[in-house]
Amino acid sequence: MYAHTIQIRVRYGETDRMGYLYYGNYAQYYEVGRVEAMRNIGLSYKGLEDSGILMPVVELQSTFVKPAHYDDLLSLITTITELPKVRMYFEYEIVNEGGDTINYGKTTLFFLDAVRRKPCRAPAELIEKLEPFFI
Amino acid sequence: MYAHTIQIRVRYGETDRMGYLYYGNYAQYYEVGRVEAMRNIGLSYKGLEDSGILMPVVELQSTFVKPAHYDDLLSLITTITELPKVRMYFEYEIVNEGGDTINYGKTTLFFLDAVRRKPCRAPAELIEKLEPFFI
Amino acid sequence: MYAHTIQIRVRYGETDRMGYLYYGNYAQYYEVGRVEAMRNIGLSYKGLEDSGILMPVVELQSTFVKPAHYDDLLSLITTITELPKVRMYFEYEIVNEGGDTINYGKTTLFFLDAVRRKPCRAPAELIEKLEPFFI
Amino acid sequence: MYAHTIQIRVRYGETDRMGYLYYGNYAQYYEVGRVEAMRNIGLSYKGLEDSGILMPVVELQSTFVKPAHYDDLLSLITTITELPKVRMYFEYEIVNEGGDTINYGKTTLFFLDAVRRKPCRAPAELIEKLEPFFI
Repeated sequence: MYAHTIQIRVRYGETDRMGYLYYGNYAQYYEVGRVEAMRNIGLSYKGLEDSGILMPVVELQSTFVKPAHYDDLLSLITTITELPKVRMYFEYEIVNEGGDTINYGKTTLFFLDAVRRKPCRAPAELIEKLEPFFI
Repeated sequence: MYAHTIQIRVRYGETDRMGYLYYGNYAQYYEVGRVEAMRNIGLSYKGLEDSGILMPVVELQSTFVKPAHYDDLLSLITTITELPKVRMYFEYEIVNEGGDTINYGKTTLFFLDAVRRKPCRAPAELIEKLEPFFI
Repeated sequence: MYAHTIQIRVRYGETDRMGYLYYGNYAQYYEVGRVEAMRNIGLSYKGLEDSGILMPVVELQSTFVKPAHYDDLLSLITTITELPKVRMYFEYEIVNEGGDTINYGKTTLFFLDAVRRKPCRAPAELIEKLEPFFI
Repeated sequence: MYAHTIQIRVRYGETDRMGYLYYGNYAQYYEVGRVEAMRNIGLSYKGLEDSGILMPVVELQSTFVKPAHYDDLLSLITTITELPKVRMYFEYEIVNEGGDTINYGKTTLFFLDAVRRKPCRAPAELIEKLEPFFI
């Protein structure tokens, strides 16, 4: 298991009329969480794409426990629960400044060969960097 | 059961670097789907809010089958599967111009009394308008 | 001069904590306005891009006269003020249901040859379709 | 004059089909820039709002010199050019990792009394915190 925590501050434009972080914006936070989780172990998502591997999302799940508000400084914990083969699973937990978990999320991604437009296995470099966390 | 279909065209700003409709933007489409489904039977979501009933989302689920691209004219079918009590369930299916289902979604919302900041039952007006579809 | 009007309804996710259409979302409305203005005379912006001509924005200007609110049905008038050469100018006016102008905008775009990554002249097809409006 | 610099990394969901940071998303970056510029001298924009002063944008101007790309780490310099009276002016410059200025922006905001829904003068606390920079 590999987990990584980042902080994200809620932007004004991300709130809605209720004064809450709009429910549709959590998916973008998850994306930032997984990119930074990967960067933290030396993996560049941009680098992966430039080398011809795309990672589209096939499944998204989100549970909204409490609202987040404008200017809240949120902690987002991103967890990779298993070593990826043809799919990669991420789990998310968002905690507010008061220590309350406000959101749980899950996404499933797959690896897509950009040139052949076909699914492929997880690239060797990704496995290599993640393996130490799954022994 | 009550179902309603609308069409949404993918905006440039909603696409991402892959050229796809960004996965985080489907939640906004779902929101448009449920608002228009309600408007179609004489229910104004804005009116509900103005009368003091908010409807926050507690659960979001999305399955991405095929990508949507810039300028695609998508059909979004929004279905209300059961008469709401304290929660309201919506299901979504997005079909592209070729007739392929590209996305399935589900959301669960609850009714929140804006003044007392407490969950409440579905407002009478909503039940009244929906009841004919659930006989 | 060529002008085209479309209607856009303000989405929940496009509002902010003030209950207004977020000021950053007008640029996306302008984009929808120019794409539909072009489509109306038989020009596909997507087709242009697929043929290798991109149209990046170099200048954006916006004056916010009155706020737009959630669920407002806005009229967006997009005007092409002159026949494009190396740059293309669009002007926008947004009018609410009460007939009040709530926003004025202007954008300047240029034509970019996607392969050579160099600015180029307006494509012949675009000029041809627009010329009848500038006699 | 008071200037403050922050860093913002371009999110995947903020890019478009061209692979560029979508032109409509700069306005949100400007907003983050001015909020952080204010926070840096002990001013909370959220606090202002909670005390009943809103700051709607009346004018937005943006010049796009070069594109920003996914994952770019941008420096955003926000400058307050004069002590606010009934309006507040912000200027922005965005510089990429290579040191190139890619964007210039300007916004004009005014102060709105949230209860009386009328424009008002800059709050005393704001003037107090900014005055030392304008001697």
